[in-house]
Amino acid sequence: MNPNDAPSPRARVRRLPEKARYDRATVESVLDEARFCTVAAVVDGLAVSLPTLHARDGDSLYLHGSRSNAVMKAIVARGEACVTATLYDGIRVARSGFESSIAYRSVVVFGRTESVTDLEMKRRILDAFVDAVLPGRAGEVRPATNAELRRTLVVRVAIDEASVKLSAGPTEDPAEDQALPIWSGVIPASLRFAAPVPSTDGAMAGGSVPLPESVRRLFEGRS
Amino acid sequence: MNPNDAPSPRARVRRLPEKARYDRATVESVLDEARFCTVAAVVDGLAVSLPTLHARDGDSLYLHGSRSNAVMKAIVARGEACVTATLYDGIRVARSGFESSIAYRSVVVFGRTESVTDLEMKRRILDAFVDAVLPGRAGEVRPATNAELRRTLVVRVAIDEASVKLSAGPTEDPAEDQALPIWSGVIPASLRFAAPVPSTDGAMAGGSVPLPESVRRLFEGRS
Repeated sequence: MNPNDAPSPRARVRRLPEKARYDRATVESVLDEARFCTVAAVVDGLAVSLPTLHARDGDSLYLHGSRSNAVMKAIVARGEACVTATLYDGIRVARSGFESSIAYRSVVVFGRTESVTDLEMKRRILDAFVDAVLPGRAGEVRPATNAELRRTLVVRVAIDEASVKLSAGPTEDPAEDQALPIWSGVIPASLRFAAPVPSTDGAMAGGSVPLPESVRRLFEGRS
Repeated sequence: MNPNDAPSPRARVRRLPEKARYDRATVESVLDEARFCTVAAVVDGLAVSLPTLHARDGDSLYLHGSRSNAVMKAIVARGEACVTATLYDGIRVARSGFESSIAYRSVVVFGRTESVTDLEMKRRILDAFVDAVLPGRAGEVRPATNAELRRTLVVRVAIDEASVKLSAGPTEDPAEDQALPIWSGVIPASLRFAAPVPSTDGAMAGGSVPLPESVRRLFEGRS
């Protein structure tokens, strides 16, 4: 697929189309780097959105929640959903407010939805959630019980139509603004983790439980 | 208002109500700290959400966009909207996947919408956007022209009904999990800015335009 070809009219970026990307690698990279997403649904007659975690496996985007979650129930009943995720990459400081903007990468996914009910499938997907939040952690935790799996609603959203919009690089002030003695530049931003705060309950109270590999890796920047 | 009293049924947090806050100070603090929000609308029959910047002034939440933005036009036509914003505060690493979660603060606002058309009002609101992104910057940039103001759609969302859901602190593993020799703790996270990258065009190319107060303050942590 040509990276500049939108997969569908509704997935086409209309405003600032030069910032659009439609290739699967870019779509997946933004989904995988984003630490949460937003899912939209009509609830009680009004469009609402819900921030929630996601985990991607191939062309499936998985969401989960309580079985009573109104937004999750609505997107399953509807059979399709729109999911967005955004990375805030910094501030593009221009000479005017009009040209000032944000450096960002945002992804929009439209896709068919279904509830995942098979218990072993749910187990694998919930492990993928644990690893999406903290890579390698699924292999360190106490395995999920069947009761826990049954209490969790897991929804698959097929990544049927997706687009990325990305904004980066120096500001694009018009020539007359460039001549002004006003500072311009980019201030990069990213999410950073601070030193872990160990629990003080149970076995942790003894101080003999070592920091796990997953947490160590998060700080070695090779997660 | 009692901080634990929801302002309306739809603004009431149903899942984990002990994490809910309804007092105005908490609502405003999350809105003000969040660097972008998500606005939901029905477009072409499906609920979609759009990440966008916001600026708050008292009980008004302002959004802006291109005049052709489908989501912005839809929330104006509808007369009300749901806006959410989320702060990702870290990872709560439990002994099980089920108890593992995110430290976060998220706000949901339901409110009446209207398009702001008065040019001087738009000027003040767009200055507020510039300052919301980088405090103090509005006083440093080249003032907005009337043409720029006219090209921008500004929408006011009244903060009529709002709730915050917040999750923080150590994990809450059940007693049997606490006894396991598995590490548990919290890894705090926050958005951090890196060193500014100055533009190299126009007057900036001469290297004689000093770093402005607004950018300096962002790094002094007193913005």
